[in-house]
Amino acid sequence: MNKIISLSKRRGFIFPSSEIYGGFSSCYDFGPLGVEMKQNIKNLWWNEMTKLHDNIVGLNAGVLMSSRVWQASGHLTAGFADELVECKKCHKRFKMDEITNYKQSAKHKLQITNMKCLECGGELTKPKKFNLMMKTFVGPVENESSLTYLRPETCQGIYVNFLNVVNSMRIKIPFGIAQIGKAFRNEITPGNYIFRLREFEQMEMQWFCPPPNLVGDKTTRMDTNKKRTNTNKTPDEWFEYWKEERLKWYLDLGIKKENLRAVEIPEKERAHYAKRQIDIEYHFPFGWKEIEGVHNRGDFDLSNHLKYSKEDLSYFNEESGKKYIPHIIETSVGVERILLAFLCESYTEVKGGRTKTTKAVKEIESVLKLDKRLAPIKIAVLPLVRNKPELVKKAKEVYQLLKSHFSCQYDELGSIGRRYRRIDEIAVPFAITIDFDTLKDNTVTLRDRDTMKQERIKIEELVEVLKKTF
Amino acid sequence: MNKIISLSKRRGFIFPSSEIYGGFSSCYDFGPLGVEMKQNIKNLWWNEMTKLHDNIVGLNAGVLMSSRVWQASGHLTAGFADELVECKKCHKRFKMDEITNYKQSAKHKLQITNMKCLECGGELTKPKKFNLMMKTFVGPVENESSLTYLRPETCQGIYVNFLNVVNSMRIKIPFGIAQIGKAFRNEITPGNYIFRLREFEQMEMQWFCPPPNLVGDKTTRMDTNKKRTNTNKTPDEWFEYWKEERLKWYLDLGIKKENLRAVEIPEKERAHYAKRQIDIEYHFPFGWKEIEGVHNRGDFDLSNHLKYSKEDLSYFNEESGKKYIPHIIETSVGVERILLAFLCESYTEVKGGRTKTTKAVKEIESVLKLDKRLAPIKIAVLPLVRNKPELVKKAKEVYQLLKSHFSCQYDELGSIGRRYRRIDEIAVPFAITIDFDTLKDNTVTLRDRDTMKQERIKIEELVEVLKKTF
Repeated sequence: MNKIISLSKRRGFIFPSSEIYGGFSSCYDFGPLGVEMKQNIKNLWWNEMTKLHDNIVGLNAGVLMSSRVWQASGHLTAGFADELVECKKCHKRFKMDEITNYKQSAKHKLQITNMKCLECGGELTKPKKFNLMMKTFVGPVENESSLTYLRPETCQGIYVNFLNVVNSMRIKIPFGIAQIGKAFRNEITPGNYIFRLREFEQMEMQWFCPPPNLVGDKTTRMDTNKKRTNTNKTPDEWFEYWKEERLKWYLDLGIKKENLRAVEIPEKERAHYAKRQIDIEYHFPFGWKEIEGVHNRGDFDLSNHLKYSKEDLSYFNEESGKKYIPHIIETSVGVERILLAFLCESYTEVKGGRTKTTKAVKEIESVLKLDKRLAPIKIAVLPLVRNKPELVKKAKEVYQLLKSHFSCQYDELGSIGRRYRRIDEIAVPFAITIDFDTLKDNTVTLRDRDTMKQERIKIEELVEVLKKTF
Repeated sequence: MNKIISLSKRRGFIFPSSEIYGGFSSCYDFGPLGVEMKQNIKNLWWNEMTKLHDNIVGLNAGVLMSSRVWQASGHLTAGFADELVECKKCHKRFKMDEITNYKQSAKHKLQITNMKCLECGGELTKPKKFNLMMKTFVGPVENESSLTYLRPETCQGIYVNFLNVVNSMRIKIPFGIAQIGKAFRNEITPGNYIFRLREFEQMEMQWFCPPPNLVGDKTTRMDTNKKRTNTNKTPDEWFEYWKEERLKWYLDLGIKKENLRAVEIPEKERAHYAKRQIDIEYHFPFGWKEIEGVHNRGDFDLSNHLKYSKEDLSYFNEESGKKYIPHIIETSVGVERILLAFLCESYTEVKGGRTKTTKAVKEIESVLKLDKRLAPIKIAVLPLVRNKPELVKKAKEVYQLLKSHFSCQYDELGSIGRRYRRIDEIAVPFAITIDFDTLKDNTVTLRDRDTMKQERIKIEELVEVLKKTF
């Protein structure tokens, strides 16, 4: 893990937030390579959802919403609060499970009133609820009426816009709404690098389908060929469908089967809105951890928004003439978590002169074997040596040719072996080397990061050949 | 303007935030078409900056940063506050210029102490500063030490990461850092639809260059061919360069010359950090308004961060052996503002049966003539009629063929003329119609939104033909 953290900072993937001011509160910024990799993840997910699946449209709601949204969602009540105790002396707060774990490990009897502060040994208050939402004030007066919260999840923006989407897009159930956006949670114990952040990005898809009692009802959808199959699916069957789709997505992007699992969450541990919940977990160096949740939310959300807003959020099926509150299957991913999973999965160490530099034979070389769709830089252009102006000139021509098509890097510093090592470490899938033969026959060598095979290709065919591989 | 607002809601571009709860505070959400159009704008800008220009890398810093950043930037002091007066009776607050404009127009003498509340006529307090930053608390304790702010601009995230970028990317001055991200300002008077929002997205590029006294100094850059030109440019010349580049970008994307202007801002009206400032303005239906700013920020930002953080933020030029604080030229765009500008620019009304539907001859038809790179949906697939199963089947095959390549829509409802009108209104550049000839010769008609020309194309050539136009 420390090697990944070090590489991420050294090579421009991830920087600690506000570092020149001593850092800030478990927050991180994404550097030049991190921002490209994150965007690749988001594009792949968006494409998968809105282009490769039928009947899913996008949405982008704000971080700021009416505080009434958080009443309806349950976030202002018990559902989204941690129990904390506070030290009466130093005023530091602790999560109940920090205190209880501590005491359990010390084999003390669990008796809250007798527990002491982990920091100064002071007396602790009784546990009280602490809301995880970050608050702010919007408008010229700072009072109860201008108080609102940074959204702790993106999905509520989808629910409150459900009717707007149905009405503007003439879309028919079953359909989905996809959204990517920031969410904020005032976690008491953030940690594990970028795994649990206070500011993070979610990619959520909410799938609206008929409730179990209306399955098989005369419902239209755009793709009439699939009509029977889809309208006959119960929410539970859609749940299975989306769980499988999501698992496939990770495997397709290079996560090994043995590092991925779907864990069924028993009723008493589920989120307050979930009738059924699967956590998709990845085997991080620090253990199995959730990277995505698939939830059957039933009609919890739309029913609550209907109750609080008094707006009729039911869906009208024109063909059957029936109105109903759709049920919702949700897939919810944390972008930073899966970015970390992809980094962990692809980080590889190779011993002994993989790149054939003289000194490197005994050194360990690190290679980031990211799927090429995820790689932040796709192609490196390298003149064999930098002290031959003809080679440098030609290499720059090739770089200019490619850079409007692909994310490219030009590098002339150091031996060619050293440069291969540098680009291997940041996952560049292809290296193009301009050598003395290039000046004779206008061909270059194309080196594949994983197979290390090199083939000669004509410069005028480069763009086309490379386009086919991406 | 009302027509654009109505179309935007009705057709899924822009929805009022939290609408089922009566809306929220001049905030807006982006619907299925709005989110695609916004993403197109962001991709085009990102591509322009990081791929089509040399030596610009990306970054993505958090909304939350250490509050010390806002001390150094000047946002916690006078530079980012409005003067407000408050009514002692009803407690409503007003901007000084609201009150003074009001009094000036009523030809009263300007005497603040005698002024009355515009709302209830009550007595007003003396003016006091009101900070435009939205505050929040991060961490388990809610006090002065956990207080921070939602960033009111994205560029500070770039300045505090300046050294991280230099060190991790081995990039040499002159170079740029580009960033797209949300910012928040507690505007007292937001308005003009999505023009002035409290939550908005910025696209900023910060260009780091040598200070005027070191211009011409031996500075390397990757592209040695351009070495002389670039190192000889003064910050003022870079300022001119970027101003021209940005103006070209808008013209290239379809903004008419007469609706765009660059306004030089005189010293006393400039932002507190600006040595020189150009506002790029667009002629909205509600007047000329700023959509982008180009600023010469000098060494204001890095010098202040150096002063407050005590970290040495100077740049070391290896070749000349000199250390210096680079000067910064900034280009800063509001994404929602230019999205609105593109909508205004492209909204066109045509009278008299453009699409040749019988009833439409006397009706006004609206066409959104967006550049095809900005259009949220690129292609509509339409069977000539919906009651011929062979046509519908064929049309769905064509739709399936295209949808993994382009953002597509399938539509079979209503007469073909009515469907053309519907897609013209949401800027779809190309319509593909499947008619009876299709069943004979496997060709379709491809209709161009702007010329309304139709040509027949073989289905197997469609993807290639369309790919060439985008």
